Amino acid sequence: MTTAAGYALGSLLTVDGLAVSEVSRILALTSHLEAMAPEERSQVLKGRRVALLFYESSTRTRTSFELAAKSLGATTTLVSDKSSSIEKGESLKDTGLTLRALGAECIILRHPAGGAPFVLAQTTGLPVLNAGDGMHQHPSQALLDLRTILSRLGRTDKPVDEHVLDGVTVTIAGDIRHSRVARSNAMLLPRLGARVLLCGPPELLPEEALGLGDGIEIVRDFDAALKRSQVVMMLRIQRERLAGLEIDLADYIIHYQLNEERLQAYAPRAVVMHPGPMIRGLEIQGEVADSAQSAIEEQVRHGQAVRAALLVRALEQA
Amino acid sequence: MTTAAGYALGSLLTVDGLAVSEVSRILALTSHLEAMAPEERSQVLKGRRVALLFYESSTRTRTSFELAAKSLGATTTLVSDKSSSIEKGESLKDTGLTLRALGAECIILRHPAGGAPFVLAQTTGLPVLNAGDGMHQHPSQALLDLRTILSRLGRTDKPVDEHVLDGVTVTIAGDIRHSRVARSNAMLLPRLGARVLLCGPPELLPEEALGLGDGIEIVRDFDAALKRSQVVMMLRIQRERLAGLEIDLADYIIHYQLNEERLQAYAPRAVVMHPGPMIRGLEIQGEVADSAQSAIEEQVRHGQAVRAALLVRALEQA
Amino acid sequence: MTTAAGYALGSLLTVDGLAVSEVSRILALTSHLEAMAPEERSQVLKGRRVALLFYESSTRTRTSFELAAKSLGATTTLVSDKSSSIEKGESLKDTGLTLRALGAECIILRHPAGGAPFVLAQTTGLPVLNAGDGMHQHPSQALLDLRTILSRLGRTDKPVDEHVLDGVTVTIAGDIRHSRVARSNAMLLPRLGARVLLCGPPELLPEEALGLGDGIEIVRDFDAALKRSQVVMMLRIQRERLAGLEIDLADYIIHYQLNEERLQAYAPRAVVMHPGPMIRGLEIQGEVADSAQSAIEEQVRHGQAVRAALLVRALEQA
Repeated sequence: MTTAAGYALGSLLTVDGLAVSEVSRILALTSHLEAMAPEERSQVLKGRRVALLFYESSTRTRTSFELAAKSLGATTTLVSDKSSSIEKGESLKDTGLTLRALGAECIILRHPAGGAPFVLAQTTGLPVLNAGDGMHQHPSQALLDLRTILSRLGRTDKPVDEHVLDGVTVTIAGDIRHSRVARSNAMLLPRLGARVLLCGPPELLPEEALGLGDGIEIVRDFDAALKRSQVVMMLRIQRERLAGLEIDLADYIIHYQLNEERLQAYAPRAVVMHPGPMIRGLEIQGEVADSAQSAIEEQVRHGQAVRAALLVRALEQA
Repeated sequence: MTTAAGYALGSLLTVDGLAVSEVSRILALTSHLEAMAPEERSQVLKGRRVALLFYESSTRTRTSFELAAKSLGATTTLVSDKSSSIEKGESLKDTGLTLRALGAECIILRHPAGGAPFVLAQTTGLPVLNAGDGMHQHPSQALLDLRTILSRLGRTDKPVDEHVLDGVTVTIAGDIRHSRVARSNAMLLPRLGARVLLCGPPELLPEEALGLGDGIEIVRDFDAALKRSQVVMMLRIQRERLAGLEIDLADYIIHYQLNEERLQAYAPRAVVMHPGPMIRGLEIQGEVADSAQSAIEEQVRHGQAVRAALLVRALEQA
Repeated sequence: MTTAAGYALGSLLTVDGLAVSEVSRILALTSHLEAMAPEERSQVLKGRRVALLFYESSTRTRTSFELAAKSLGATTTLVSDKSSSIEKGESLKDTGLTLRALGAECIILRHPAGGAPFVLAQTTGLPVLNAGDGMHQHPSQALLDLRTILSRLGRTDKPVDEHVLDGVTVTIAGDIRHSRVARSNAMLLPRLGARVLLCGPPELLPEEALGLGDGIEIVRDFDAALKRSQVVMMLRIQRERLAGLEIDLADYIIHYQLNEERLQAYAPRAVVMHPGPMIRGLEIQGEVADSAQSAIEEQVRHGQAVRAALLVRALEQA
């Protein structure tokens, strides 16, 4: 079955068109699978075939999806740019059609170009899970971040609806401009009642960032943003990306690094998050990452749980 | 058990010495395995160990063999030039002996040097499946192409013998000179009764190509070749290879690209094939690849089925 | 449970602190697992999760651990520097914590820096198996070499204690300086009663090598060393490493290559070993590697058996 737009029903391409009721259903399915005994879980997708198509390097997202699939009994195969026809100039469409002909029933795609998952979903008719496309979207990250927040703030008993995050303010700090994680979260969280504060210097956070919707505002002063927040998400700083910009790293650290002193002064109870990989000593101090406030490892755990649900959702409708 | 030449019986090194009766047996085994329920199929090679040894990049052939092996219940391990001792200067012989000592019962080899599979088979005594060696051979491709042709032309009910392709003309067009796919098909198809027309400019198709045997001829005019054919196989053009030659790409496209207009004019009912990866807009027009005449995806499906049979054949005699 | 030093009990980081009684226990477990039927063995670590974290290329060690884990029913996942966050500057600590959060219960680590496995074991609290750290240690190699020696010398019935190798002299020849294999063996074998002769030119074997303990001596004359030995271990010569040194390759071969003539003249019954990958014609003649005296393939087989035991040991205490 496909949607009106022609994508297989179980696809997750962006959080954009994802109804709140669907978010709720995914999280319920996540908890349902999590409660299963390993033996039982290993039968859920027994014999089903999942292809991992990665045009960019990835440890955590790739391994997370791979182990989620294996824990459900699915057979996985990895195709990466390092050892494949990808480098021979074959189109994404043809690689997708080949994977489908090889028996893949679902494709997990990471691609440097925004929108690539849409192309793949449309040309193959298979459910496609977007594991990050350029600077565009990383929807499974937004869902795992949401689950982490609900769990840390003790709201797992509430129905997941437009009000589940009422009264919650989330600061997202760092290189917003290049971040698909920021984009996905800023799109999802306000629809559940949260307020999102985007924080960073103008070079990394232009005024027109994200086409600011309801519930989102830009706050340049990190300390002020922290003061208002129950949750703070730090983003990775990539030195390569700073190179072209007029940013001094030492100066950046002074204003935007999440360190112990700043955290205790302005947000001593906030949940600290980071999608990883993080660079300790740059955007975040090691002590903060290791502190009790940090939910970074929990994010990884929730990630695998959510991705198991996404796989089941993708394949039960295929 | 080994053959007179010292290779393990279940090896597939080249289509050269492959008797027609053996081709018939492989295709029968393919259909037998294909008819099994997934549950049953997953027991056929339960616990057997297959090593994939790839000295060249590959998506479709590697994934095809890997998924075929997994669907039969075998355990696979991939050794590729990207992450292995291969780059440390170890000989093919020693890598093979190591894999054997690690418990591999069959090795699937892709190697840039023609003849490498013979070396590996002789030094290890294991059944070796040639997954492409230099510009020499790609025998599993020839078998899957054969199965695709038989299926498309409605000849699956006939016994596979010297006459099963009587009256069938197959054009192979493009870079014949560098193609192990062309070499393997030109060797196999005429022995089953087909006529093979090789088509391409002299730089990519020298007069002495393949040591032309019976049933093979060179036809320089693509349109004339198409007019006589029930099947047309297009080969990938690699820009790198054209560089050294006196070939103008625009000129090549005019004379040898398989486009809609040419196909409708000269071979409106021919089966269109391509071993992949293909470059749309170069050797083949996208519309043609996606048309009802195209059997390109079927080739991939037949490939996996045939490779399952080759694995069973290799291991049942080991 | 952790040791006094804070490492998970089942870790194997170095042979340094490994008690002889523990060596004995590991070898007994190896034989126990080896005697199991495949069906039974595939249940031992059913559903357990093992991560392979490789910051350096490796065929035999990686494949050996991977197939050992799979034969026990464990699920494996490979993270290598070629396709991972490793290259994005994430710390070893954070990669380890991520793998733990993803459900890994044991990590097999190869790393270019000596001591890295200690860091990983301490920060994750997981059992870590050192699969080679810089020029420091390769403990599973020392254990498999030990098992090969015991088997070849017919001492498998004796209790593995301080005297099991009494009267046995082992020559280790070649690039001792850069070899973690030499270091690990020279540390382990004398504690079991063996005498170890280190052999090589001063550039590759400085006087202060290894902090020579009891039972170890330097013998520059290869022929003299061979004459005294029941076992000779050859080490790989890496051309890159010779480059900086004042060593002439032809000259090296004359003095230190293990060739047929030398072997027959001075040690016609010695067991010949090599950890691989070997370069035939450099440190060892092909004929010697293929001779009946060579135990090189047996080393690989023992390697996989020992590693299965190390995995069970790691996970049963986790």
